[in-house]
Amino acid sequence: MNLKNDLILRAANGKKIERTPVWLMRQAGRILPEYRKIRNSLSGFKELVETPHLAAEVTIQPVDILGVDAAIIFSDILVIPEAMGLQYEMIEKKGPYFPKTIESQANIDSLNNSDLEDHLSYVFEAIKITKNELSQRVPLIGFAGAPWTIFAYMIEGQGSKTFSKAKSFLYREPELAHMLLEKITISTIEYLKLQIKAGVDLVQIFDSWAGILSPEYYNEFGMKYVHKICDKINQVPLTVFSKGAFFALQSMKNLNCNTIGLDWTMDINQAINLFDNTKTLQGNLDPCVLYGDFNLIEKKTKEMLNNFAGNRHIANLGHGVYPDTNPEKVKCFIESVKSNN
Amino acid sequence: MNLKNDLILRAANGKKIERTPVWLMRQAGRILPEYRKIRNSLSGFKELVETPHLAAEVTIQPVDILGVDAAIIFSDILVIPEAMGLQYEMIEKKGPYFPKTIESQANIDSLNNSDLEDHLSYVFEAIKITKNELSQRVPLIGFAGAPWTIFAYMIEGQGSKTFSKAKSFLYREPELAHMLLEKITISTIEYLKLQIKAGVDLVQIFDSWAGILSPEYYNEFGMKYVHKICDKINQVPLTVFSKGAFFALQSMKNLNCNTIGLDWTMDINQAINLFDNTKTLQGNLDPCVLYGDFNLIEKKTKEMLNNFAGNRHIANLGHGVYPDTNPEKVKCFIESVKSNN
Repeated sequence: MNLKNDLILRAANGKKIERTPVWLMRQAGRILPEYRKIRNSLSGFKELVETPHLAAEVTIQPVDILGVDAAIIFSDILVIPEAMGLQYEMIEKKGPYFPKTIESQANIDSLNNSDLEDHLSYVFEAIKITKNELSQRVPLIGFAGAPWTIFAYMIEGQGSKTFSKAKSFLYREPELAHMLLEKITISTIEYLKLQIKAGVDLVQIFDSWAGILSPEYYNEFGMKYVHKICDKINQVPLTVFSKGAFFALQSMKNLNCNTIGLDWTMDINQAINLFDNTKTLQGNLDPCVLYGDFNLIEKKTKEMLNNFAGNRHIANLGHGVYPDTNPEKVKCFIESVKSNN
Repeated sequence: MNLKNDLILRAANGKKIERTPVWLMRQAGRILPEYRKIRNSLSGFKELVETPHLAAEVTIQPVDILGVDAAIIFSDILVIPEAMGLQYEMIEKKGPYFPKTIESQANIDSLNNSDLEDHLSYVFEAIKITKNELSQRVPLIGFAGAPWTIFAYMIEGQGSKTFSKAKSFLYREPELAHMLLEKITISTIEYLKLQIKAGVDLVQIFDSWAGILSPEYYNEFGMKYVHKICDKINQVPLTVFSKGAFFALQSMKNLNCNTIGLDWTMDINQAINLFDNTKTLQGNLDPCVLYGDFNLIEKKTKEMLNNFAGNRHIANLGHGVYPDTNPEKVKCFIESVKSNN
């Protein structure tokens, strides 16, 4: 059976489309009361991630309720360090916390690169349930964190404004850093392949902390490993979203991927000129536009679409939708895209 | 009496210099044990800001201890909202907090644009004491926050990863936003003029939250007011540091200022090509380099100096020095600059 709506796959492949496809990063989550109801019945965020039929349910909610052109599997980028042996907790209103962090070669050596299929079986099970329940209505997106971003959490142990502990590790221990990044990369490639085997139709790599490195260091410790992943994933279209890494856009032209995510600080015309339709661009409305009134949301969405007009484009925000956004405003964004053509 | 070391002023004015001058943002502060000793004897950060002879003492410490080519008056960008009637607290390990924030036109109307000389007399007194005690050894830098950054705190009420409350105010209430930004701009111009009258030799505008706006919105709500300030301050050299605003560098060519601050994500060669020695560039070593060993600090500092070689340049980090940096590492950075010529 073929997908009923494959707009996003055609857009990613640079094929002809009737209208611009649209989805939102973090569309499955706190913005929806239906999500919060399920989430509140559980012990925490991780129970939801690790319970396949519930993860599948919240994955599908935005397709049913918001009318997006793709689902993205409900999960967390930090399942990879956990599968490698570094447990984490998700602390309410604070974010992730790793009781143990990576400090030495011994710590790196003790990380596990095997049994990923077993350790993360709940993700692959959630993907299978979701694919079944979606009944080919829209594609399902899989994802993973980029190695540098995963590395940053494994060293820092938690979120940070500066990630100075993780960054200083690059300056103090560049060889160990490459060793750890290599290990993360191997797991990430296998993880994405297993997601594809379980049924996802497209994958996205999130490099959430790309923008805190200098151009030279992001090239050496970030982009290098994103390249390796892209070269190994050819089965489905691949999107790379390196938030804040405006300085790396030029080098991203050479990535073996279909789509480049743009955050809202990136100038659309410059990106269009740079990529010259060799890649699809995804984004990039400022998430804060959705705090405006309906007229403003429609106006700003149409302006963005006009800026991308005639070029390969998947509509999205320039970052994950903020959790306190009114779902009606999200619908307005989606409808503004859908009604534009 | 003339300044014994006026390197930074000559560099800002594009005049001939024997070697590149160097100072650090946040050089007066927690990195120095001598600072912490004074700070710990007081009730809090604000008592230090508001006690002129102590503010002067910590301002001069980095000149004596680290050997920088300029002092920067120890103060806080948030003294301006406070002088306008919006009190704030500095909460240990958390940052600034405003019990009342701006939500309406009535709130804006109630802000005060007069008596700045009286309200902020402690700053001008600290400047006079510092100038006297410096005995013309090095120039003294004054500063203020850029209107958008001050606005962000006045609306948000505290630090934030996204400043979504402040940003959404721009989208929801653009006219009120301009009204408030205009008021902040008037106070900021007067504040800088009063600092100059009290004796500072150079002023810097910090737009710490420039990088979270879209290019369009930063142009309309940020850069517009920086322009107004630059056009009114002609008595001493002026530096503009818009952190993260890579997208605005092109338009900053037209600013009526001497120096542009670069953060560490900005490519030096691109900036050199863009400004073509029409302005002095300041920066831009990644503050995390100072967590490396002495060899690395020297190597990275020399690399940076080589990248700027032959162009108008003031050496600095690309952001304020991080509070847990070893002062010996800071000295290594400074000495690496001084010994380069």
